[in-house]
Amino acid sequence: MTSFAISPLDTTLNNALHHKIQHKTKPLGALGQLEAIALQIGLIQNSLTPKLRQPTMLVFAADHGIAESGVSPYPQAVTAQMVHNFLAGGAAINVFSRQSGMTLSVIDAGVNHAFAENSHLIDAKIGMGTANFLQSPAMTSTECETAIARGAEIARTEIQAGCNIIGFGEMGIGNTSSASCLMSVLTGAPLAQCVGRGTGLDDAGLANKIGVLTQAITHHALNTSDPYAVLRTFGGFEIAMMVGAMLAAAEQKVVLLIDGFIVSAALLVASRIHPAVLDYCIFSHRSDEQAHQRLLAELKASPLLDLGLRLGEGTGAALAYPLVQNAVNFLNEMASFESAGVSERSA
Amino acid sequence: MTSFAISPLDTTLNNALHHKIQHKTKPLGALGQLEAIALQIGLIQNSLTPKLRQPTMLVFAADHGIAESGVSPYPQAVTAQMVHNFLAGGAAINVFSRQSGMTLSVIDAGVNHAFAENSHLIDAKIGMGTANFLQSPAMTSTECETAIARGAEIARTEIQAGCNIIGFGEMGIGNTSSASCLMSVLTGAPLAQCVGRGTGLDDAGLANKIGVLTQAITHHALNTSDPYAVLRTFGGFEIAMMVGAMLAAAEQKVVLLIDGFIVSAALLVASRIHPAVLDYCIFSHRSDEQAHQRLLAELKASPLLDLGLRLGEGTGAALAYPLVQNAVNFLNEMASFESAGVSERSA
Repeated sequence: MTSFAISPLDTTLNNALHHKIQHKTKPLGALGQLEAIALQIGLIQNSLTPKLRQPTMLVFAADHGIAESGVSPYPQAVTAQMVHNFLAGGAAINVFSRQSGMTLSVIDAGVNHAFAENSHLIDAKIGMGTANFLQSPAMTSTECETAIARGAEIARTEIQAGCNIIGFGEMGIGNTSSASCLMSVLTGAPLAQCVGRGTGLDDAGLANKIGVLTQAITHHALNTSDPYAVLRTFGGFEIAMMVGAMLAAAEQKVVLLIDGFIVSAALLVASRIHPAVLDYCIFSHRSDEQAHQRLLAELKASPLLDLGLRLGEGTGAALAYPLVQNAVNFLNEMASFESAGVSERSA
Repeated sequence: MTSFAISPLDTTLNNALHHKIQHKTKPLGALGQLEAIALQIGLIQNSLTPKLRQPTMLVFAADHGIAESGVSPYPQAVTAQMVHNFLAGGAAINVFSRQSGMTLSVIDAGVNHAFAENSHLIDAKIGMGTANFLQSPAMTSTECETAIARGAEIARTEIQAGCNIIGFGEMGIGNTSSASCLMSVLTGAPLAQCVGRGTGLDDAGLANKIGVLTQAITHHALNTSDPYAVLRTFGGFEIAMMVGAMLAAAEQKVVLLIDGFIVSAALLVASRIHPAVLDYCIFSHRSDEQAHQRLLAELKASPLLDLGLRLGEGTGAALAYPLVQNAVNFLNEMASFESAGVSERSA
């Protein structure tokens, strides 16, 4: 099994970073959350002058056996169609990554389609989609371990090429169902609090989804908090691959930019393997998927954006990237009261 | 007096824009607030393919007589010092405007300092700061009208040069006091609900500020809802100039990107002169200044960001600009279900 050595944040520079932030030409605390982000990235990079290099968006795609049980209003074929859309540059994540200056890579973690070779597509296919976890575990142990190892390898390749901030995104019809089960089983929250409308279920569709997923959780009756066991039972190939990529990125002290509900569910699994992974995470947005809001609370996350997004793909992470860049920029580029000759406040 | 002809939003393309947004390759409504922004800008420009050109940040600076009454923890000299900081490129608004690709212009609307000529500074000085409105109106009628006219002229110059989106920012020690009085008198809200800690007052300072401003409002006992009268009594030169710039920009169907509390107070005045100005506004953020949250509700605004900012200068507007650009980009660049060959949802 792939193992990871993740250090908690090195806080050596904590006071020096605080001092630097507090002496910028602005009232104390006036840049709100951006100050917390600047501090966090300074600590991650152990530097008073952190830099973001080669920001990269990794979008992991895979199919899900559970999709055949009517948990999504879209047919499974949409996963492969959207991968083609990503490769053609026409999806929201293409538009937002371009605007943010992020390099986009799409990973076939296990889509039910044989893609032609494409320089923008990383072939890491574990299979033609997971098994339907209504009947059997979604993955075998070997598939799950292979997905984690491949994800780690993909992240390490990007990092070796110079990237030090990775945005995580995903595509997979049915994957909110995986995310809901992972969340419910790992946190103990009732399933109904872990389920949302996904790509747009109506009331009847939502009731069906809750029914199907309740049946699945009852069927497996997992009596364990082992994150690997929960992951292989309910996860998706793209989710397992993200778990590996996240752990490898945190091991290398890279910033993780977390997107919405499914990415957060992958992070939940990763954090149950290595809690310190959370030290390296910036949460990009609070999605409109109600379960995401509870999951963020579970992860003690303060997301940057709250725009009513519920698209996935990494779109929230790409939209938030300029804010992260601005947090680093103010730390590096703003004058101090002293350097600018600006009077400080009276006591 | 400068007059403005502001048309309400032309809704001719409403259905066509809705149709275009709904057929993008994403679930209905999945881009949340960005969809509303894309629609609004399409209507403002009366185009299915709107473009943002030469985004410009105008930062209006002026001094305030009320500052001598101890309403800010910073000395008045900080206004001029911060203008120098803007001109040297070291303030937060410089950093964020650069990152967002916005051209920054600083306007001396009435700072208590004689600046040397500088190509980044627009000299529109009305005076060396307003009178202390604790004793007399902040401005004469002529000063107020001149400020509005100069603001309009500044906006028109930018627009004639090709700009079609203007971010509004400000600097002026004491100007949250002006904003609070404008808000209280124009909306009828109790003053205590219109006052915040500004650049960082403690409890005693806040109590003093409320006391001083209550005294000022009582002293003038304005028995009118005439926005010009309220503006000249409690406003600042930078606030009056923003009112003129906002009205001129809306007249020319330019997008107005609204920053925090003081800019919103200027907009409140502008909207009492011409309510249709609000159709052209995008609200960038909800500031940590509690009065701003009430003022946004009064203006029926749904701001894009909520990052705990309380700096002013236009920083929220500069930080939000990439989101606005992304809203326009998805409308122009995303594929439709049909063009990308992606299946739509089942009924």
